[in-house]
Amino acid sequence: MKKFMDDDFLLYGESAKELYHNCAEKLPIIDYHCHLSPKEIAENKRFSNITELWLYGDHYKWRAMRQCGTDEKYITGKSSDYDKFREYCRIMPYLAGNPLYHWSHLELKRYFDCDLTICPENCEEIWKITSKRLQDEDMSAKELIKKSRVTLLCTTDDPRDSLEHHKVIADSGYSVKVLPAFRPDKGLNIDKPDFAEYIQSLGLAANTEIKDYDSLCEAYMRCLDRFENMGCRTADHGMDNYISFSKPDKFHADIILKKALKKETVTDEEISVWKTQMMRFFGQEYVKRGWVMQLHYGVLRNPNKTMYSKLGADTGFDMIYGQSCISDMARLLNYLTEWDALPRTVIYPINPSDNAPVAALCGSFCKGDGSGMPTVLQGSAWWFNDNIKGMEEQMLNTANLSSFGNFLGMLTDSRSFISYPRHEYFRRILCNLVGDWIEKGQIPDNINTAKDLIKRISYENAIQYFGFEV
Amino acid sequence: MKKFMDDDFLLYGESAKELYHNCAEKLPIIDYHCHLSPKEIAENKRFSNITELWLYGDHYKWRAMRQCGTDEKYITGKSSDYDKFREYCRIMPYLAGNPLYHWSHLELKRYFDCDLTICPENCEEIWKITSKRLQDEDMSAKELIKKSRVTLLCTTDDPRDSLEHHKVIADSGYSVKVLPAFRPDKGLNIDKPDFAEYIQSLGLAANTEIKDYDSLCEAYMRCLDRFENMGCRTADHGMDNYISFSKPDKFHADIILKKALKKETVTDEEISVWKTQMMRFFGQEYVKRGWVMQLHYGVLRNPNKTMYSKLGADTGFDMIYGQSCISDMARLLNYLTEWDALPRTVIYPINPSDNAPVAALCGSFCKGDGSGMPTVLQGSAWWFNDNIKGMEEQMLNTANLSSFGNFLGMLTDSRSFISYPRHEYFRRILCNLVGDWIEKGQIPDNINTAKDLIKRISYENAIQYFGFEV
Amino acid sequence: MKKFMDDDFLLYGESAKELYHNCAEKLPIIDYHCHLSPKEIAENKRFSNITELWLYGDHYKWRAMRQCGTDEKYITGKSSDYDKFREYCRIMPYLAGNPLYHWSHLELKRYFDCDLTICPENCEEIWKITSKRLQDEDMSAKELIKKSRVTLLCTTDDPRDSLEHHKVIADSGYSVKVLPAFRPDKGLNIDKPDFAEYIQSLGLAANTEIKDYDSLCEAYMRCLDRFENMGCRTADHGMDNYISFSKPDKFHADIILKKALKKETVTDEEISVWKTQMMRFFGQEYVKRGWVMQLHYGVLRNPNKTMYSKLGADTGFDMIYGQSCISDMARLLNYLTEWDALPRTVIYPINPSDNAPVAALCGSFCKGDGSGMPTVLQGSAWWFNDNIKGMEEQMLNTANLSSFGNFLGMLTDSRSFISYPRHEYFRRILCNLVGDWIEKGQIPDNINTAKDLIKRISYENAIQYFGFEV
Repeated sequence: MKKFMDDDFLLYGESAKELYHNCAEKLPIIDYHCHLSPKEIAENKRFSNITELWLYGDHYKWRAMRQCGTDEKYITGKSSDYDKFREYCRIMPYLAGNPLYHWSHLELKRYFDCDLTICPENCEEIWKITSKRLQDEDMSAKELIKKSRVTLLCTTDDPRDSLEHHKVIADSGYSVKVLPAFRPDKGLNIDKPDFAEYIQSLGLAANTEIKDYDSLCEAYMRCLDRFENMGCRTADHGMDNYISFSKPDKFHADIILKKALKKETVTDEEISVWKTQMMRFFGQEYVKRGWVMQLHYGVLRNPNKTMYSKLGADTGFDMIYGQSCISDMARLLNYLTEWDALPRTVIYPINPSDNAPVAALCGSFCKGDGSGMPTVLQGSAWWFNDNIKGMEEQMLNTANLSSFGNFLGMLTDSRSFISYPRHEYFRRILCNLVGDWIEKGQIPDNINTAKDLIKRISYENAIQYFGFEV
Repeated sequence: MKKFMDDDFLLYGESAKELYHNCAEKLPIIDYHCHLSPKEIAENKRFSNITELWLYGDHYKWRAMRQCGTDEKYITGKSSDYDKFREYCRIMPYLAGNPLYHWSHLELKRYFDCDLTICPENCEEIWKITSKRLQDEDMSAKELIKKSRVTLLCTTDDPRDSLEHHKVIADSGYSVKVLPAFRPDKGLNIDKPDFAEYIQSLGLAANTEIKDYDSLCEAYMRCLDRFENMGCRTADHGMDNYISFSKPDKFHADIILKKALKKETVTDEEISVWKTQMMRFFGQEYVKRGWVMQLHYGVLRNPNKTMYSKLGADTGFDMIYGQSCISDMARLLNYLTEWDALPRTVIYPINPSDNAPVAALCGSFCKGDGSGMPTVLQGSAWWFNDNIKGMEEQMLNTANLSSFGNFLGMLTDSRSFISYPRHEYFRRILCNLVGDWIEKGQIPDNINTAKDLIKRISYENAIQYFGFEV
Repeated sequence: MKKFMDDDFLLYGESAKELYHNCAEKLPIIDYHCHLSPKEIAENKRFSNITELWLYGDHYKWRAMRQCGTDEKYITGKSSDYDKFREYCRIMPYLAGNPLYHWSHLELKRYFDCDLTICPENCEEIWKITSKRLQDEDMSAKELIKKSRVTLLCTTDDPRDSLEHHKVIADSGYSVKVLPAFRPDKGLNIDKPDFAEYIQSLGLAANTEIKDYDSLCEAYMRCLDRFENMGCRTADHGMDNYISFSKPDKFHADIILKKALKKETVTDEEISVWKTQMMRFFGQEYVKRGWVMQLHYGVLRNPNKTMYSKLGADTGFDMIYGQSCISDMARLLNYLTEWDALPRTVIYPINPSDNAPVAALCGSFCKGDGSGMPTVLQGSAWWFNDNIKGMEEQMLNTANLSSFGNFLGMLTDSRSFISYPRHEYFRRILCNLVGDWIEKGQIPDNINTAKDLIKRISYENAIQYFGFEV
């Protein structure tokens, strides 16, 4: 029997152990998509207790607590930090098999040198140990990132962002590269009630009055330049629900924009035309600049209106949309291809049933460009799939339907400064998968070739694909 | 090599064996959803041969026989009981890997002390052994249930049911609690040709003339009270095909009902309005009474009209609908939430592709109510998923996306008095899953914590969730 | 650690090894669906180098190369054969886990006695070895098939085909039976621009002027007779995208056909009526002749119009359609059942999410005909699913939802004369699955019963189901 989470956690064969301990474990981390706050990094934020670090704003944990019948007062309510932590300890044994179980224990081990099992009995001691440790100098935002062996990370930023915090970080001589990533969702969501105000504020941020399609593009171009000047290499699109496609043109896009700016209602068809036109605009800009486009899609956000009106977005109530929109996605990629607007693209489906269709779709839009990397590929298992089974299935699917050796590996997608053990978690699963292939005679017993594969997927492919300089 | 179906059947590690033999195996059974006939229990029905017990009315076996090219005369036709059994023995070797293979052998072992392999060569001997054994006193309906260590079961009953058989059973001093469960499908299916007659008979059963929406509700209220008085704790809805949602109101529901009572055609939109309104009505009643609502959905019933016209419903011709209706399901749950009409709810999808979307959906409608149990959760692997792979996937999915420790465990959903080994089958798979986590160092090697988990899932959670008194 | 691809490749237990080496390995091959060129067989085609054999026309490999960022000049472009092969060697290490990795190495071993790992370092030596070996007498099309132990194969042929090459092959005394299979897709695709020309050429081939529905049927009947006279036992339908169903009739089919022959636009509804009517016509003909109907569906072809206009169809750009059309498929099978137009039918879905729904669907249309074989069943894992995981899932799904013992086993679906190791690959996976059931005590340790199962699935079931004479 293996000890719980020992050095060989998730490594079940000799080859897996060799690959992890003598290769993956020592590699630095590139976190090419996360939601860390540049402001908090710039200010080198500190935390007073484990609840602040773990339970403030982590909607994965909030959701889990509700699924265990926790009272909302211990989740987003007014209970004390200690009481909230105690409640998290209460539910932990019920989360056996959940990634939160492993993430939480890994974080406790790696950042607090604490091997205690999280459970009601150990609640008080863990609280004490962590509270004490958090007072240490090296437990600040910047130090936490650095000691996690991160060399580069990309935050997620609105086009309006002045990137002042990124500048402060860069100027501070911080050894970790903190790059912005361009996330223009709000300018695509023309159906949202605050769209007109958003566009107005975008104009202010870009120092341009936006009154039509051309001036909007002008404003965006300035934003894109500002991002590029801060070293940006990627844009991220959160395409909720489903992808719709309608053949667009500038003339109609201009009319639709003007309607929306006057707060007139836009039809579903107009929304679709608008979004497609903007995807073409952005795609062409990304191609020009050599950026990578990341597409996250398939989430049904805020289905529970009662809770949404109480707590707002990103509070643990999002779900999987369910219906397939693969053929619309294909139409979109085909359109972008026709207009030379398809940059290197990473697609992240949220429904595990989309694994195979998305991998096949990606293959259909690779250009044969001689760059040594695929044009379009499926990203790492995301959100509801970010667990052992989900990662194994995504990787096996990539191997079966695509080129495993070109897979980009892990990203945290997290708001937390101590979520980096997710890279460790991923690498252990990766090494176990490849090690298992060796043990089973499914790939040659050539440990160096296998290590090359691990190195590429854990670290090098991301650098090559995004064009990072590290 | 393990012996076929020995004591450690499906238990592949020491922890799994410990968890099963020293915990799960000895626990009593709560069967919170089945299709046993209360009349047959009340009458303490007996069986003259294995065909009567196994092949009369078991559409799982009928389907399997057709899939092996069996002549219909041996399935639902006029062949002798012995010839039908011989044909079942003929196909058994082809069913390797099918749950029927394990169920049938387990039932033979547990109820007939017969270890013979089911195959043509053993047909005659099995027939003799079982025929003889069935003459014994303890092979009656009531004794079979009791010796299976069932302490409580819920049948499935139409709102019109007088529950006289439940009363007879309760009055007989039978040690097993046999509760009714409320199944109002026929009153929701306003599009079915016999809807008007059904509503009329419902009025008779409730001693009310039903002429409009209000009097219908009045009638239902009386039925609900009758069920509650017999100890009912749950309602079950068979929502075939897909879930449609249309915002309803009492005014239109009343108009639609009156049309249907006059046998006028109702539109698809009206059907949807009607069903949603009734779900709201029932949901509010269930909330008031603290009942659990069970939703089974996604089945495409009777697609083969030729066979349907010959043999009727539930004869082995149903299938999986295929298309996702997760977003409509979300709209429905959101609507019920808004009207305080969302009771504790168990959702059973039939399409394994719905596992992840349903688990995510459930999480989005948990209330954070402090009850220590989730408001909405996914039920055990159902029907076409009720097999080793299906159960493992449902459990892993629940663990990954939800709270495994709050899972409600197994139910038989069966019409048979000897289907209880399905609980044994489930518990072995459950113990193997959790035992494997221990062996692999994925949860702590704390056997007591693990046994608590097994106990909750096998037995205690159902009691707590449904509020059973045992 | 197992050696890479040794004798026990993919066989992980003693039972698996016994089943493979002492049963499956020695069985001949029936390849009941492939895309070999009858002309190339008749001419006993030879190959000058490994690129010609492997990379001319293999769109699986082309797709993989694009997914590795290969320049198109090495794929479909003008590079030398050697440079193309060198590029294939370059990407091979990245294809770890991909079926191409195993297929390529198996083919090298089995046909070239070459155990080298495919990688840049071994490129030159493999090129030399294979080039030399290809000069040998026994490396011609006919010899390659024969030495693969194929006893019967079915090609895929347009109804217009004169079958002259099949006649030449039959008359040549070739020991392998090479039968035609009827593939009438082009006559169903009434929406394609070249439909009218196609029908005209069909008329020529059938010596009938086609001017209406009746004369079309007359022409088809002659084609069907010609195929039957050449020993044809099966028809294959490539039903792309989704299955649509609309209740048809001869009267409207006639009108629709005449419109299409005049190159007038047909509506979506008319397309659906037309296709359904033709499926009924063909189905009735197949029933009459005792043929098996194979339905391949769910592929979204040529989504990348830019590449389609450059390279045409079947060049590695097809994908999975994504949306479920199971309920339309059910309507179609129901309709065919009503008109006695449902022959024995094999359904091949392309989306792995369709595994369970299709298996359930098949069960709903089995007739209980006493033939000892199912009427409708799911075929072997196809195309994007033709890999270890895909095959295991398809087989487990078949076992769980259907009758594993009646499964028809493998087919190559290939254009290559050396793709037969895919049968070996399949049989190893099959034996490992069944062997694992024995090792785990999930089926009795009766090796003869298990071998019967392996024999049926590897070889005998196809003979019985298709009615082949070998």
